[in-house]
Formats: sequence, C-alpha cells, structure tokens
Amino acid sequence: MKKLELLYSGKAKSVYKTDNIDQYLLEFRDDLTAGNGAKKGSFQQKGVINNKISNLIFKELERSGVKTHFIQKISDTEVLVRKAKLIDLEVVIRNVAAGSFAKRYGLEEGSILPLPILEFFYKNDNLDDPFINDDGIIALNIATKEELEIIRTAAHKTNEILKKMFDLAGLNLIDFKIEFGKTDSGEIILIDEISPDCCRLWEKDTNEKMDKDRFRRDLGGVALAYLAVLDRLSAQFGKE
Amino acid sequence: MKKLELLYSGKAKSVYKTDNIDQYLLEFRDDLTAGNGAKKGSFQQKGVINNKISNLIFKELERSGVKTHFIQKISDTEVLVRKAKLIDLEVVIRNVAAGSFAKRYGLEEGSILPLPILEFFYKNDNLDDPFINDDGIIALNIATKEELEIIRTAAHKTNEILKKMFDLAGLNLIDFKIEFGKTDSGEIILIDEISPDCCRLWEKDTNEKMDKDRFRRDLGGVALAYLAVLDRLSAQFGKE
Repeated sequence: MKKLELLYSGKAKSVYKTDNIDQYLLEFRDDLTAGNGAKKGSFQQKGVINNKISNLIFKELERSGVKTHFIQKISDTEVLVRKAKLIDLEVVIRNVAAGSFAKRYGLEEGSILPLPILEFFYKNDNLDDPFINDDGIIALNIATKEELEIIRTAAHKTNEILKKMFDLAGLNLIDFKIEFGKTDSGEIILIDEISPDCCRLWEKDTNEKMDKDRFRRDLGGVALAYLAVLDRLSAQFGKE
Repeated sequence: MKKLELLYSGKAKSVYKTDNIDQYLLEFRDDLTAGNGAKKGSFQQKGVINNKISNLIFKELERSGVKTHFIQKISDTEVLVRKAKLIDLEVVIRNVAAGSFAKRYGLEEGSILPLPILEFFYKNDNLDDPFINDDGIIALNIATKEELEIIRTAAHKTNEILKKMFDLAGLNLIDFKIEFGKTDSGEIILIDEISPDCCRLWEKDTNEKMDKDRFRRDLGGVALAYLAVLDRLSAQFGKE
C-alpha cells in the first residue's frame, strides 16, 4: 500500500488516497476542536490514542456484524479503510440527556431517557450542522428513506455494542456521534471514528466526564481521560 | 350556552369555560405577535377576520373528514369548540422553503420542496419552541408513537385540503402551523385556528406575501392582506 495525495483535511483527521482505488488512509492528528471549530487545542499522543481506541472499537463492531470501513492499522496514527462517499449526516444516539439535547429541551444533564434517542444533524459547517428530520433529509436529497432505515438500524446496533464495551471499561455511554458512507457498490457502512472526541463517557460510579467535554468545558485532565479510556478498553478487548 | 371564567389567554386568543363541561369558547383578539411574543402589534377587526377565516376553513375540513374542535360561531370574535387537552406540539407542514426552514438549511426562500415536509416543534415558550423529532417526542412523553401517526396523517390531509382552498382563492400555500388536542374520550382532533397568523400565503402570480410575514418583516398592508384572504375565501366557500 502506497500513501498518495491528501484528499481532505478535517478537524482532527486527514484522509489520503492510496494506490488502491478502493482504499483510503486516515491519519489521526493531535488536534482537538469544539463548537464547530471555534475552540481549538491539541495534546501530544492524541492521534495515537484515538487511532487505537477507534480501531479497537471498529474491530469489535465488525465482529458483531456491523459493517464498517475498517481494514487494518498501518501505523500508530494511521489506519487503512474502505473508500466510501460520506453521507452528509451526523448520527447521534443519546441514552442519557446531556449537552445540546438537555439544553434544547430544558432537561437536567444526567436525566436517563426512557429509550435511546436517535437524532440526525445535517453535516454542513457553514450552517453549523443543523438538526434535521427524515422528511428534511429526503427533501434535501441527503439520503433516501431506505438508506435512513439502514442507518437507523446500524446506529442502534452500534449503541447496544458500545454500551456493553464501555460498561466493561467502567464507563456509562451517555451519547455519541457516528457517520456513515456509501461504497461504490452502494453498501452503507460506518466510517469516520469512534473515540472520546465523539462519545460522552461518564465514570460509572462518580459521573466524572472522560471525554471531549473535559476540553469543551475546560475541566483539565483531557489527555489523562483519553488515555484511561484506551487503557481500560485495551485491558478488555486486546491491545488494539 | 353561558360564557364562564377565562381559562387561558394566549398571544392572540383567549379560552373561556362554558356551562357545558365538554365545550370551550375561543375569543379571537386583535393582538398580533411575532418571534415568540418579542414583537407585538394589533389591528382593528383582526379578531373578527381571523375568526371568520378559521371557521370557514374548519367547516371545510370537517366536510372533508378531518376531525376538528369546531362546533359553531357564537359572535364576530367568538367560536364554540369541543374541549380538548392541547398536545404540546406545533405541527408544521412546508410545501415551499421559507422562513426558519430556508435559513436553517441554506435554501433560497421560494425553493419548491419535492414533497411536503412535516416538522414538529415542542410547544414551550420558555424553550422557544424547539424543533423535535419523533424519538424526542416519545421520550419526553409529549405524545405516543401511535398518536404521532394519527397527527401526521391528519396534518397531511389538512395540507391537501388547504392547498386546494387557497389555490381557489388565488394563493399558494407555502407552509402552515397547526395544533392538535385530545378529548376526554381520547380522540385526537385539530384545535386552535387556521388563519394568516399561522399560514404563509403568497399571491400565485406575484409571490406577494398575504400573511403574518407582512407584520414580521414590516412590509405594511397587514390588515388589507388579511381582509383579502377572507374576502376571497368567502367568495369561494360561502360567507362563513
């Protein structure tokens, strides 16, 4: 596999072409952003930690039957993935009210929801990723009704698997954001990453935050929290 | 029928108890507000005009099989309605992109949507009526999945009828907001009002606005526009 030109540089990862037309290389950088890029930061080894966490999770999801883009780890910060065209949605599942959801509906952060809630956001930086419903997604030609059903089912299955994984690591999965893509053959697969950048993870006993909210809310100890998540997942699910 | 004590005073209407435990009396006032009450105004005869428009429409909806709260007109500004407990949702149907929808998704106002879009907003003044999806509505215990299906079907049927009515009056129905309530026997019925306060109506030929946007956007001619809507509907559908 040969790493070719940079295709796209996101807020925390870069995507490269490879000499295989069906494969991309993702590079996890040390950058950390919040508020749609309004707040910027970084910490050493973040790219390494998130690449490890994400690979470990994607492998476990694949084992459980969720189709993902994961092929294999290439280096500490790089992973080889299946090429897929991003579907412009941020897919959020919430088990407990927190963040924008708690604020939007006047709920106390930490209120347990009677069922997992799925929300779609239109992935568009210029519009600040607005909340959108199925009708809007179909009208704006972002995805079809059938594609939304595939995504919805895969997202809920991912939630069930992640809840169990994080539970074994002593963490409650409060909510998380995932993304999906479409391969050239039309298959819809989980892409992007799953890490403390896009999950809310609270210590089971103390509700201490072990995720990007430590950065968003200036709580300190960001790197230590990410590292703890990696160490505990690794202890349960193998080195990577 | 005897008008008893004031039960609730909204932004443009007041609700009174009557001596019949199953019936309320709605009084249409001359008040006009926008932006969740931030902008206030009024014009003479507005209550009379909206009461007439709304009654005429509700009668036509009933004739077409949509269950509503309408019983009978009592006076120029008053209507007798079936008692129903408000379901805390604003149900919006959009045929053409305008207002908050166009802004939220970066669309030009006036873009025709490939299909009517239904959106729910959680009716809560303190929270500024936030956008909400089915999962959120069910989790917050605002309505059940079954109730949402009844509401969705009734809203789309209402849209089809309204589009035809306004078309005969020379107007394009761009979007509208309706509300539903639940009777003591559990029936879900259309309540509140349908008037230029809660519909976007554009002249078919010129796209001139004939609704509350004239007030919201300081275009002038508010009263004349409301009166024209009444006159044209009355010419097609009888005096009231």
